Amino acid sequence: MKVKVAVLGATGMVGQKFVQLLENHPWFKISALAASERRVGKIYGNEVTWLVSANMPKCVRDIEMVPMDPKYVDADIVFSALPSDVAKEVEPKFSEAGFVVASNASAYRMVDDVPLVIPEVNSEHLSLIEVQKKNRGWDGFIVTNPNCTTIMLVLTLKPLMELGLKSVRVASMQALSGAGYPGVPSMAIMDNVIPYISGEEDKVEKEPLKILGKFDGNKVIPAPITVSASCHRVAVVDGHTEAVWVDFYKDVEVEEVAKAFENMKSLNLPSSPEKVIVVRMEKDRPQPRLDRNEGNGMSVVVGRIRKDAWGIKYIVTGHNTVRGAAGASILNAELMIKEKII
Amino acid sequence: MKVKVAVLGATGMVGQKFVQLLENHPWFKISALAASERRVGKIYGNEVTWLVSANMPKCVRDIEMVPMDPKYVDADIVFSALPSDVAKEVEPKFSEAGFVVASNASAYRMVDDVPLVIPEVNSEHLSLIEVQKKNRGWDGFIVTNPNCTTIMLVLTLKPLMELGLKSVRVASMQALSGAGYPGVPSMAIMDNVIPYISGEEDKVEKEPLKILGKFDGNKVIPAPITVSASCHRVAVVDGHTEAVWVDFYKDVEVEEVAKAFENMKSLNLPSSPEKVIVVRMEKDRPQPRLDRNEGNGMSVVVGRIRKDAWGIKYIVTGHNTVRGAAGASILNAELMIKEKII
Amino acid sequence: MKVKVAVLGATGMVGQKFVQLLENHPWFKISALAASERRVGKIYGNEVTWLVSANMPKCVRDIEMVPMDPKYVDADIVFSALPSDVAKEVEPKFSEAGFVVASNASAYRMVDDVPLVIPEVNSEHLSLIEVQKKNRGWDGFIVTNPNCTTIMLVLTLKPLMELGLKSVRVASMQALSGAGYPGVPSMAIMDNVIPYISGEEDKVEKEPLKILGKFDGNKVIPAPITVSASCHRVAVVDGHTEAVWVDFYKDVEVEEVAKAFENMKSLNLPSSPEKVIVVRMEKDRPQPRLDRNEGNGMSVVVGRIRKDAWGIKYIVTGHNTVRGAAGASILNAELMIKEKII
Amino acid sequence: MKVKVAVLGATGMVGQKFVQLLENHPWFKISALAASERRVGKIYGNEVTWLVSANMPKCVRDIEMVPMDPKYVDADIVFSALPSDVAKEVEPKFSEAGFVVASNASAYRMVDDVPLVIPEVNSEHLSLIEVQKKNRGWDGFIVTNPNCTTIMLVLTLKPLMELGLKSVRVASMQALSGAGYPGVPSMAIMDNVIPYISGEEDKVEKEPLKILGKFDGNKVIPAPITVSASCHRVAVVDGHTEAVWVDFYKDVEVEEVAKAFENMKSLNLPSSPEKVIVVRMEKDRPQPRLDRNEGNGMSVVVGRIRKDAWGIKYIVTGHNTVRGAAGASILNAELMIKEKII
Repeated sequence: MKVKVAVLGATGMVGQKFVQLLENHPWFKISALAASERRVGKIYGNEVTWLVSANMPKCVRDIEMVPMDPKYVDADIVFSALPSDVAKEVEPKFSEAGFVVASNASAYRMVDDVPLVIPEVNSEHLSLIEVQKKNRGWDGFIVTNPNCTTIMLVLTLKPLMELGLKSVRVASMQALSGAGYPGVPSMAIMDNVIPYISGEEDKVEKEPLKILGKFDGNKVIPAPITVSASCHRVAVVDGHTEAVWVDFYKDVEVEEVAKAFENMKSLNLPSSPEKVIVVRMEKDRPQPRLDRNEGNGMSVVVGRIRKDAWGIKYIVTGHNTVRGAAGASILNAELMIKEKII
Repeated sequence: MKVKVAVLGATGMVGQKFVQLLENHPWFKISALAASERRVGKIYGNEVTWLVSANMPKCVRDIEMVPMDPKYVDADIVFSALPSDVAKEVEPKFSEAGFVVASNASAYRMVDDVPLVIPEVNSEHLSLIEVQKKNRGWDGFIVTNPNCTTIMLVLTLKPLMELGLKSVRVASMQALSGAGYPGVPSMAIMDNVIPYISGEEDKVEKEPLKILGKFDGNKVIPAPITVSASCHRVAVVDGHTEAVWVDFYKDVEVEEVAKAFENMKSLNLPSSPEKVIVVRMEKDRPQPRLDRNEGNGMSVVVGRIRKDAWGIKYIVTGHNTVRGAAGASILNAELMIKEKII
Repeated sequence: MKVKVAVLGATGMVGQKFVQLLENHPWFKISALAASERRVGKIYGNEVTWLVSANMPKCVRDIEMVPMDPKYVDADIVFSALPSDVAKEVEPKFSEAGFVVASNASAYRMVDDVPLVIPEVNSEHLSLIEVQKKNRGWDGFIVTNPNCTTIMLVLTLKPLMELGLKSVRVASMQALSGAGYPGVPSMAIMDNVIPYISGEEDKVEKEPLKILGKFDGNKVIPAPITVSASCHRVAVVDGHTEAVWVDFYKDVEVEEVAKAFENMKSLNLPSSPEKVIVVRMEKDRPQPRLDRNEGNGMSVVVGRIRKDAWGIKYIVTGHNTVRGAAGASILNAELMIKEKII
Repeated sequence: MKVKVAVLGATGMVGQKFVQLLENHPWFKISALAASERRVGKIYGNEVTWLVSANMPKCVRDIEMVPMDPKYVDADIVFSALPSDVAKEVEPKFSEAGFVVASNASAYRMVDDVPLVIPEVNSEHLSLIEVQKKNRGWDGFIVTNPNCTTIMLVLTLKPLMELGLKSVRVASMQALSGAGYPGVPSMAIMDNVIPYISGEEDKVEKEPLKILGKFDGNKVIPAPITVSASCHRVAVVDGHTEAVWVDFYKDVEVEEVAKAFENMKSLNLPSSPEKVIVVRMEKDRPQPRLDRNEGNGMSVVVGRIRKDAWGIKYIVTGHNTVRGAAGASILNAELMIKEKII
């Protein structure tokens, strides 16, 4: 008996990735696809320009799209692939109506009583759900996952916390799929780098403090670290790459960092990769084209760990629409099933 | 009466750029092209796969290539576009034989009595020439220009020195032309980022300290700053982009930094751009494809100057084979003519 | 005393190219920039995202945009960079009001009394202007230039007509700039080829017959040739490449074809290239990145002329937004000035 | 009991693809990897820069490479991924020594007594094996598969033969992986098209005549068709795209062609795709990035079937290193097992 799940914003790039990852999922079964007004009543297979692989999964081709309204959605969990402004209005309607909302949207990530969760990092923040339901008198609730660039970064910062992490500088080289479709014009990015992504640096600087923060039984106390980000778009289809500098309160060696990465535990969930962090020793890895599908896109790959005058620097790569978006929401939902929250 | 100049290593990518920039130069005239053994005696126009523009300049098509040996080279200045290991052997032979060697090679950059010069930054280091000639008993001498990534960076660091610059972190996104030809295989870089360039980070971390150092009448005292670099190759033909974090000994505002950049003086040399640093206010500039040819490739373009918890961050872009290589050597030679060193 | 010219649709990609090419034009001076409703009254320099080079020409930065209405446009010639549907309505209003309309739009290209002109190919078709004015009772008139892919092709077909050209097959590999801005999404074309361009094959198959046709004093009799096109988009910024097969009524040799190309006469107009067709003998030319700027983008470059079982095949490359669009319209206007039609 | 297979030239791009496709093969098991002199005795996992996916299969990592000499190779079948000049010398040594050589090299493709086979097209040509063995007195034999571009093309030509195929013109847009590694320099292909691939047009024009020819019991009578090819390299990682014009002896409709493609039978071999030719009806398909992995890279995808003045034109895409190289040789070997030739 699989759990019925719906996708809100099913026609966009992340929406399609949700659909792709949910095909043949052992625990979940797509029961509804919700889309914007103009697409309601239309058949998913006729309406959507399928972009994430050669062929759309057969199981969704004949689904008639429904409105983004709890009344029309038959599901236990709704995955939200909505743009932030739409999510802001739509998601509370679903949680109020008793749905579990597992959201990739940024709208509620930084709200005090909404968990911002990466299962391997801060599953204990799910306790905020009770706070949220009490505060708001809702039957359902919203659980969010971080921004794609934040996720890759924080997966590597978590094991560094106990080494005395103090501050982080990160320069990202982000893939085109992160901007959706049509997204970045080819004329803008061919033979080029665009050193700006709207709103991104702010998210990468703020979200990690919440995720790495301590839940005190009532709220999350932000982690006492500082992050400074510089975000850039490069001509890569999928896979974000980040150059990270981390400073510590004490002297830390390359081997300690490598070991901390290697020791990060994977959870035993359907979408969990065998290894959360894969450390590569080659001098020129990770690379997005070669490493983005590691662990079916759910691992992050780290390399070039080296020491500088102040601390450590390294490179991390991960799949931005799998581990960084749809896969992140699905993993959160799996965690909630396992923890019997759903 | 133009000064006769030769190019050593004239067939490679940087060698071709020297040839291109020297065509119609107001002060210089190509009198010899020197190449490796197997090409000696061959005609430049027949032998070279011309890559830097549609057509090879007519003035060099019929030149017969000579050996990299002072005996066969009729010139006052030799520009060196040699790989480091070859430069190490060849350049001293020319300086010993009385030639002025203006070198883009890395072999002698960090040697104590060899000037490492960016005209707008440390022209006073040319005084090392006298030290060098005395030390070595040479009639000629070697003057070097920095690594391409270093040049863009240091042009922006120079005006920050008097604001109390303390430390620098830089993530580069470097163009393909910097790796020469054949250089980076297309299979390696298409839909990809390569987070490693052999030897590059070391150069970017050490060269700035010498360039920004003080000449004490005898040697250069390295500048008391620290640089940490992370260097990456991206799918861009020409133009390096660098994300820079700078920390200061005191609190510094965005406006001060912008003003310091704007005030950087250009020299009145034939290859000097009107503005050394062009500051762009658009939120998404500089971009290599749009900005690499600013000032005929001799300006660097800066944008996105912003404050973080510790200091300032910004983006700088410049043309790696013009301002960052051949144009840098030529500008050094022009400076020496103007200063009557030649 | 320069002729006053306006650009209709001045903010788009081709509009910007018109502005760029008209800066410092010896005969023309931009007197007005017309744009769509929502931009009227706004300042060009504030409103336009300049895409065709680093910096917008200073002479247009402060121009206030006017409506696409003859009443508000002070000019002798209007260059039309409008999309076809808008051109269909707007261009006749200008010609009726006495303006010379030099149009890059497709709306009127195939209309019987409208000249479709490439100056080096069929300048005699300008005699249709009198027919047009008479037919329509207009003071002004419309002159069009062909589709970008057609122009490259027909410039090479013209000299083959007297060798007995019978039929043409052409496979195009077209640049991204031809689709305007935002145009082709990067997610659609990165690591990809799109074997379809809306409406393109039809234009490439029909326009050449009119251009190469004979003007009988009253109308154009289409040339008795057949063209079959297959049009594809590739990841190139500027410059279309076409693989062409031509069959003849008689046996034709490679040398005859090369000679016919070489002998094509350039006109003595300000935008004329020194050579209309540049024939390259290297085995791997022409290439769009290397050859698109030949003759300031107004030459086409041909190579790989070879014989097959039926006829000849060759490759042609040209700059799609210069020779293939804005430059084509400007060259037509220059021709009309020289022929004293204006 | 799996059949033991060796790969000759195991370190190159196609060699790696053989290794990848042979991992977990139901009938074959890699028993030896042969490489050039300088690599003999070295461990595959240490020596090879693995390029075709993130991780090298575990089963080959510890294999010590052996010389390309029958004495040192323990296997029943050898797959040859050798360059043509090496294949010319090495392959006969193996066939003489009794090995079955399934070769992707071009050296023996056009030799009279060597089968050039695509299983779905001309399996009956395998009867040439007996002729070959008799002619040469060999215990083993050589079976070849065509050039990558030829394979995609001929898979679509085969079903057209009975519609009265007369002549073919094909313009290819070929992927970078086809040139091996390092292959095409990034500086040569970025923002560019290279309209030349050494030797390719000749292969594409000659091989189809042999493959589509009739085996008369003794030799192959070439098919009475004519092919003219224009081959171009584009910036695509994997997947060749071909624009094809086919003329017939009679009038042929789009629907007949589509039906002929759809009806092409797949064989029941381990590497056979469910459908040999997938016909897509969308106006802009096939596209290499979306369609290259159809049928695990063993299908070809056809679209845009349309009529012109003389016949039919269409687009075909396929994976050049799977269906076009390593997968083609493996499919041939599977066929020979099934037909009990091995």
